Amino acid sequence: MQPDNARLSMSVGEAMFSQRSIRRFRSDPIPMDDLHLILEAAVKAPSGGNRQPARFLVLNEPEVIRQFGALYREAWWAKRRDEKRPWTSREQIPPEDKGSTAAARLADEIKDAPCIVLALTSVRGGASSVIPSVQNLMLAARALGIGSVPTTLHPTVLERVYGLLGIPQEMEFHLCIPMGYPRGNFGSTQRKPASEVTFLNRWGASVNEWTSAAAPV
Amino acid sequence: MQPDNARLSMSVGEAMFSQRSIRRFRSDPIPMDDLHLILEAAVKAPSGGNRQPARFLVLNEPEVIRQFGALYREAWWAKRRDEKRPWTSREQIPPEDKGSTAAARLADEIKDAPCIVLALTSVRGGASSVIPSVQNLMLAARALGIGSVPTTLHPTVLERVYGLLGIPQEMEFHLCIPMGYPRGNFGSTQRKPASEVTFLNRWGASVNEWTSAAAPV
Repeated sequence: MQPDNARLSMSVGEAMFSQRSIRRFRSDPIPMDDLHLILEAAVKAPSGGNRQPARFLVLNEPEVIRQFGALYREAWWAKRRDEKRPWTSREQIPPEDKGSTAAARLADEIKDAPCIVLALTSVRGGASSVIPSVQNLMLAARALGIGSVPTTLHPTVLERVYGLLGIPQEMEFHLCIPMGYPRGNFGSTQRKPASEVTFLNRWGASVNEWTSAAAPV
Repeated sequence: MQPDNARLSMSVGEAMFSQRSIRRFRSDPIPMDDLHLILEAAVKAPSGGNRQPARFLVLNEPEVIRQFGALYREAWWAKRRDEKRPWTSREQIPPEDKGSTAAARLADEIKDAPCIVLALTSVRGGASSVIPSVQNLMLAARALGIGSVPTTLHPTVLERVYGLLGIPQEMEFHLCIPMGYPRGNFGSTQRKPASEVTFLNRWGASVNEWTSAAAPV
């Protein structure tokens, strides 16, 4: 049976302008009907030549998540070593580095997340054929009041993650998305205005404050 | 001035479940206010560490689009050669290959598109920090009645595209998105159901038709 798309009634504007990375989750499980609806939204996104190479592995069994979480935590710290950050524990992260502090806490707490989705493709180089689906997934989750955050995995743990979850070698891993109902209060996102990252007709050319007069007549 | 987000009033469900690749456009220009709103929606998407490396180059000047379109067309046919397709002109594409027929027509007609957005990043390997923005851009366009399709560019033309548009060498190109008001009638998309591309807790494990009973208690 198909899930009821009408439940994704939040407006596109509200979902996009209020989407923010959620890294602290309540322990409540996500109902399977909601997961189904979120995944149906994900597969609607475009892919190259409509070949649909995106594959999703949904984890919602606490023991599986606990074992995966240990690998995720190891991967997070391995990435810090690559980046030559001088930290070896959460306590050493400067408090003003809020992004790293929050990410390190997620690395500790992900083992207790109610749900984790791994996004993969059945072909190499398929990023542009799976990441649009991941954004659909996160926006659909947002519309249902479910928080999420896109994360990566350091190569050092990939083989063990594949082994733990029985993922065939030929699959390409792209993103790991922990999901759950938000815990705590969350402010709005900090994003550059579009005018700072957009040029018009030539690199470096300002969009002239987007006045309609700039449009061709 | 910020654009009015309330104009993106279409529901998330309708936008996602009705999004489909549009490759035939009317010549009407897209109002700059709409482009602004679409790009503001794009920059709201998440990026790795919130570093926001995504950059957008919006083309809406007919002469620029005409010159870019010639390179796009050359790139499309170069990709067919890579794929060892035996075609050298549109007429040779088997009519039953509707995807290639539509893509070849876009390669011919893109020179007349009212708008093209190029999505790039200021860092290498930034796919997962720009493609979520591209999906926001296409969904926001959909919510405003504007069609789009994500496309790539063959490497053989990239240097000339960078030269034509003044794009610095250090930028990484990701996707090219022609946009415009749809011309003609369009059916719904053909997508695999989520249950065919999703596994639960272990690769190959069916989602059991998403019954709520499968959720942990």
